[in-house]
Amino acid sequence: MEDRILLAHGSGGKLAHEIVNRRFIQALDNPILNPLDDSAVIQAEGRLAFTTDSYVVQPIFFPGGDIGRLAVCGTVNDLSMVGAKPLYISLAFIIEEGLPVADLDKIVASIKETTDEAGIQVITGDTKVVERGSADQLFINTAGIGAIPPDVCISGHNARPGDAVIVSGSLGDHGIAVLSQRQGLGFSTELKSDCAPLNGLIASMLAASRQIRCLRDPTRGGLASSLNEIAEQSAVSIRIEEDILPIHQDVAGACEMLGLDPLQVANEGKLVAIVAAADAEAIVAAMHNHHYGREAAIIGRVEAGHPGRVALKTRLGTSRIVDMLVGEPLPRIC
Amino acid sequence: MEDRILLAHGSGGKLAHEIVNRRFIQALDNPILNPLDDSAVIQAEGRLAFTTDSYVVQPIFFPGGDIGRLAVCGTVNDLSMVGAKPLYISLAFIIEEGLPVADLDKIVASIKETTDEAGIQVITGDTKVVERGSADQLFINTAGIGAIPPDVCISGHNARPGDAVIVSGSLGDHGIAVLSQRQGLGFSTELKSDCAPLNGLIASMLAASRQIRCLRDPTRGGLASSLNEIAEQSAVSIRIEEDILPIHQDVAGACEMLGLDPLQVANEGKLVAIVAAADAEAIVAAMHNHHYGREAAIIGRVEAGHPGRVALKTRLGTSRIVDMLVGEPLPRIC
Repeated sequence: MEDRILLAHGSGGKLAHEIVNRRFIQALDNPILNPLDDSAVIQAEGRLAFTTDSYVVQPIFFPGGDIGRLAVCGTVNDLSMVGAKPLYISLAFIIEEGLPVADLDKIVASIKETTDEAGIQVITGDTKVVERGSADQLFINTAGIGAIPPDVCISGHNARPGDAVIVSGSLGDHGIAVLSQRQGLGFSTELKSDCAPLNGLIASMLAASRQIRCLRDPTRGGLASSLNEIAEQSAVSIRIEEDILPIHQDVAGACEMLGLDPLQVANEGKLVAIVAAADAEAIVAAMHNHHYGREAAIIGRVEAGHPGRVALKTRLGTSRIVDMLVGEPLPRIC
Repeated sequence: MEDRILLAHGSGGKLAHEIVNRRFIQALDNPILNPLDDSAVIQAEGRLAFTTDSYVVQPIFFPGGDIGRLAVCGTVNDLSMVGAKPLYISLAFIIEEGLPVADLDKIVASIKETTDEAGIQVITGDTKVVERGSADQLFINTAGIGAIPPDVCISGHNARPGDAVIVSGSLGDHGIAVLSQRQGLGFSTELKSDCAPLNGLIASMLAASRQIRCLRDPTRGGLASSLNEIAEQSAVSIRIEEDILPIHQDVAGACEMLGLDPLQVANEGKLVAIVAAADAEAIVAAMHNHHYGREAAIIGRVEAGHPGRVALKTRLGTSRIVDMLVGEPLPRIC
């Protein structure tokens, strides 16, 4: 075996079969993946969730995770945000010629560990290799399928005036952890990405109450984008309180230094939930019992009027509009 | 609107929403895509097929197609090769900063045209933008879901001695058409890629007979790889006849010139079928009535013994082993 990826590893010929059989199938082994027909075959019934994301994060290894863990969590979380139980994912690599095979092995091992944690299987995949300089190390696409329980109906369109707004924990950890690794931006921090599969946390929340109206994972664009999307889709306004927002010191400091708004920085293991006010305390209590929800907090409420507006009550008692990100201060954060 | 793609188009912020809403949703409009939650929600029952492929073809526009048409056809065909009726696909773009928006519009229009032809819907998607030099113009990933009728059981593991081997038409058109556009390789040809969705053709075949054991679309690695895969999975040998192989003059000439074996060159609108010998003529007759199967032909048969071996009877009456591609003479052909 070569120690770097060659163009021939993406050829559909002998080396391609070798890398698929020896590295991917062996690591990710399961009875649906193994037949290696042009499609995987599954049994399903009822309402299914289907989603996809490509991952181009740079660097591909970062504190708290890597592009493989990210690619599994991102798709698991997108399925979970409509209340689905994630079941299966696809895994497609675009590899730059010359990538060390050892790096690919580490990433495949991380994918296996994360799919085990989330309780899902990789059942189909693809490998393309492009010439040196035509991609940056490694891009991964995953698509996923999940099953939505019959009595669950979660959508960005369902927020109602009076509902409570919950976040599952501290904001901005992923974005700042990845940024801290960038050349020229390197700053010292103990901070790790929060990258995590949230399906277990959501299962605990749904066990506590079915009055969960909207779920979003505030990735690219941060909490600001997620809340603006919900406010627009549901034609409501949302008011949150700066005082209560869980933001780590390190993140607040880095954002100050870099001129970023922590509300616009990406998270990869957090969710925002809009829930019936009456059940909000019970849901937060359930979240506190789950390791990915220990810092969960009610941060605001949904209001009538000004459809699409998100406002923040600052520590000084004033109010400011929380807008979506304009421009792109953090390219390739996921 | 800018006339070139900016990093901010992949930010999850305002420009990202603009490009998604104004360009993608408007062009691909359908009731499952439109809610724009983190996952699309569908109803399903029974056996489903699930597959993915990334497309990195270069150039992104080529005679007979473009990367958009290719990305739809490839996934439609992979679903079809297990006998599934393709239903839904995901669409994920990785765009190099600076791509002309007009090029993206042309590709989205081509995607729309091809999904209409195949009778499927794009129901979820993703857009990432990377810095200039970190990708080559545009990569697309699609994943797809299809429904397998209850009485259909098609797999590379099902070939039996005595079965007939059918190809749906001329070999190597896609690979040579794309190669003809490469800088430095430019040669004059009228040849077009065969890039096409094959679900309609397969529906006609299944209407003629349910004794279809294996289907493959011979893309990367060509017919040689597909037949070697089937011979290995089914533990049989396969013998084909050079005389009968449908290969266009232009392709034969270009292969001669470039030192390529047309059996190892990619196709994107062809299939190879292993079928019960008794039904082979009826299946080929059904294929001749479909516009993507006019040149279909029985090219060989499955034999017992020498499991995994594919042999070609040459025009001279001698026999040669047809091996899988070694190395990669045609990078980024799909």
